[in-house]
Amino acid sequence: MRRLNVAIIGGGTVGCGVYQALRRNSGLLVARTGTHLQINHVVVRNRRKQRPVRFSERLVSTDWKAAIRDPKTDIVGELIGGTTTAKTIVETALKLGKPVVTANKALLSEHGESLFALAAENGAGLYYEASVAGGIPIIKVLREGLVGNRLNYIYGILNGTCNYILTRMEAEGGDFADVLADAQKKGYAEAKASLDVDGLDAMHKTGLLASLAHGFWVSPDQIHVDGIRQISQMDIEFAGKLGYKIKLLASICRLSTTGSRHSAKEHQIQVSVCPTLIPQSHILASVSGVFNAIYINGDVVGETLYYGHGAGHGATASAVLSDIADAALDHINHQTVRVRPFTRHTSEGQVIPWEDIISEYYMRLTVADKPGTMAKITKVLAESGIGISSIVQPEGHKGASVPLILMIHDAATSAMQKALNQISRLNVVKSPSKMIRVEHFH
Amino acid sequence: MRRLNVAIIGGGTVGCGVYQALRRNSGLLVARTGTHLQINHVVVRNRRKQRPVRFSERLVSTDWKAAIRDPKTDIVGELIGGTTTAKTIVETALKLGKPVVTANKALLSEHGESLFALAAENGAGLYYEASVAGGIPIIKVLREGLVGNRLNYIYGILNGTCNYILTRMEAEGGDFADVLADAQKKGYAEAKASLDVDGLDAMHKTGLLASLAHGFWVSPDQIHVDGIRQISQMDIEFAGKLGYKIKLLASICRLSTTGSRHSAKEHQIQVSVCPTLIPQSHILASVSGVFNAIYINGDVVGETLYYGHGAGHGATASAVLSDIADAALDHINHQTVRVRPFTRHTSEGQVIPWEDIISEYYMRLTVADKPGTMAKITKVLAESGIGISSIVQPEGHKGASVPLILMIHDAATSAMQKALNQISRLNVVKSPSKMIRVEHFH
Repeated sequence: MRRLNVAIIGGGTVGCGVYQALRRNSGLLVARTGTHLQINHVVVRNRRKQRPVRFSERLVSTDWKAAIRDPKTDIVGELIGGTTTAKTIVETALKLGKPVVTANKALLSEHGESLFALAAENGAGLYYEASVAGGIPIIKVLREGLVGNRLNYIYGILNGTCNYILTRMEAEGGDFADVLADAQKKGYAEAKASLDVDGLDAMHKTGLLASLAHGFWVSPDQIHVDGIRQISQMDIEFAGKLGYKIKLLASICRLSTTGSRHSAKEHQIQVSVCPTLIPQSHILASVSGVFNAIYINGDVVGETLYYGHGAGHGATASAVLSDIADAALDHINHQTVRVRPFTRHTSEGQVIPWEDIISEYYMRLTVADKPGTMAKITKVLAESGIGISSIVQPEGHKGASVPLILMIHDAATSAMQKALNQISRLNVVKSPSKMIRVEHFH
Repeated sequence: MRRLNVAIIGGGTVGCGVYQALRRNSGLLVARTGTHLQINHVVVRNRRKQRPVRFSERLVSTDWKAAIRDPKTDIVGELIGGTTTAKTIVETALKLGKPVVTANKALLSEHGESLFALAAENGAGLYYEASVAGGIPIIKVLREGLVGNRLNYIYGILNGTCNYILTRMEAEGGDFADVLADAQKKGYAEAKASLDVDGLDAMHKTGLLASLAHGFWVSPDQIHVDGIRQISQMDIEFAGKLGYKIKLLASICRLSTTGSRHSAKEHQIQVSVCPTLIPQSHILASVSGVFNAIYINGDVVGETLYYGHGAGHGATASAVLSDIADAALDHINHQTVRVRPFTRHTSEGQVIPWEDIISEYYMRLTVADKPGTMAKITKVLAESGIGISSIVQPEGHKGASVPLILMIHDAATSAMQKALNQISRLNVVKSPSKMIRVEHFH
């Protein structure tokens, strides 16, 4: 029986989850992998912190350098998060040729290219299943399970906090700020909510998925991001009446050269994270609460969906254990790295600018309830070459100004933004005016 | 660049799908795996058969032995199906130490144990991702992605034909026989429908998943199987009114020793394939038409779901390509078999008899519409110790006999069957009486 030592760096939620799961299921892992995986270090910042798990005293230290350098350490788990110390930890381990398992999407999204290069130089593996949708083995699915597929599109609900907030707004009729405050009180949202609700966390994950799927590095600054702060209860209600739900949706779509709404070159993709109306009948619409899901269309396999918890100690620990098992198998098989952390397939990959995206839209205006209003609005749209697929003036709203919903055919985003600005300046239109993408997945 | 030759045995739907996909995406596979995978043989039974794909003439032969023995052949794809010639093909290749990729669930379910042993003896890999839910990389997910999890339960919709028929019965109100006949005409069901509608195909897949998940071999004869022939339009309607859908559901549940409805030993599992009422709000209820889905609860990861096409040339080809890529990586990495086809974890595994299963049930009776009927029925149930959770006498039924639905609390299957027989003999009860499992997934 081969024994391998794992140094866990980080005593937070994820570190505790991994420690607990690895201990509890060690017998199972021996049976399944033929390797005894044991923890030889747990590195924490504060020894005295109260934790849900009691670490074995002899394993705990505060010196990550010593833990990594320990000749007995075979595999390093970087589980502290952040992009400063975490980066140094990963680099230190890789330079010693030791495989690293990490759950750190921010680090990889920002520094992945250089870290992957460093891993390759040193012949060490860098494993990051836990960095995207922890409970869903999506990295393995993309790189191995769907290896024979060109990935036409990937749509994802990648942030559990946003999905939880949107689900509650829909179920209870609350407004964003109230639901967020309550979610923070209950521990479903961080005190600093920006990373989640402004879409940055989903952006990091989206960048990783896009890079893996399309074989060129997609950095955060190439991704259009819009969070959920601007989604009002009114939008959720109107979307519901029209047969839609609003989700914070990540989209990674290949623009095909034939039969497309776009005139595109090979290797052009569209990448974004933004609130989106999706049909209630679509399976992604049934993904509620803190759950994540990823919907993929491959040119060979057709449509597939993967669903699970995106975060939390259990989901993340499950992914980390899977990576540790992979690292162990690679290690005992002649220290090969079986599947490289990132493989470039193309030197021609391009993310097309957000303004050039063609999409359907939901437009919500607040307008004066008087004759001539509709004529003025539709004139602007007509002059912009934007087609309206339906107009809804919801019942039950009275007074000088009433809501008006326009559902818009395929239109370029730049044209939509311009038209919305023009419309907002009309004297019959009161603020706020709003546009939200609509996705029918075809 | 390493080149590996793949011999494809079988020129049917799957063989054509693999040929086409491997040719179309060969560049992508080179980039992703670092290996050039090329087809060196396509073995067919009939050269002159009309096929959707035109095989390169120089590759085609009718002699599978020669193709396997060809020293240039590195990997063998067994894609003919059946359990006779297919078995000889797999054995021949393994004895030569050549890795085999197969989509053949019947073969593996019936002869897996001996074939896996033969593979191990000869140091050759045996890959079978395509054998269960083709479009869903479930074998990889179970063995690698969730390697750190004890699998509490696995529920699956594993037969696309049955799901298609049930979905249409629900949507259109048709009866089983009519919908089946139409499905056969349209090519969604085989002329010989028994393998599908009697649950045997799902049984083969369930046996493989149960064996992998629980580490002991579960053979087909240990699995309780009931198909969908007996599901009537009336059951689908009543289930709908009560908030359920009827699905052909595979269940693989670990009986825990604590907090269970069952008094169970460690390593006891319940394995079945049968029509089941599931709540409309559960995500498995939104799996419609020919799609497959597998819902898994792992002790670390919590709940996860995987969804995709279960059959068809594309879905199966995607899985075969993934296995070919795995076989190729194993081959070039010193001819290791990285993940063994089957690993025994326990010598104490037991499938508990169907009669001992405790479950909720839906019971449908046709009864005389007269006083005293209910008293007689409930007396039998009370004497059997079976608790009723609700009674529904649907409206709109008139005449001497009317339908009556009883929803039953947890009851042992044997007690239920006995009670149903007694009830059916009451003079106030007309045939047919029926019981169907109900699953709430908790």
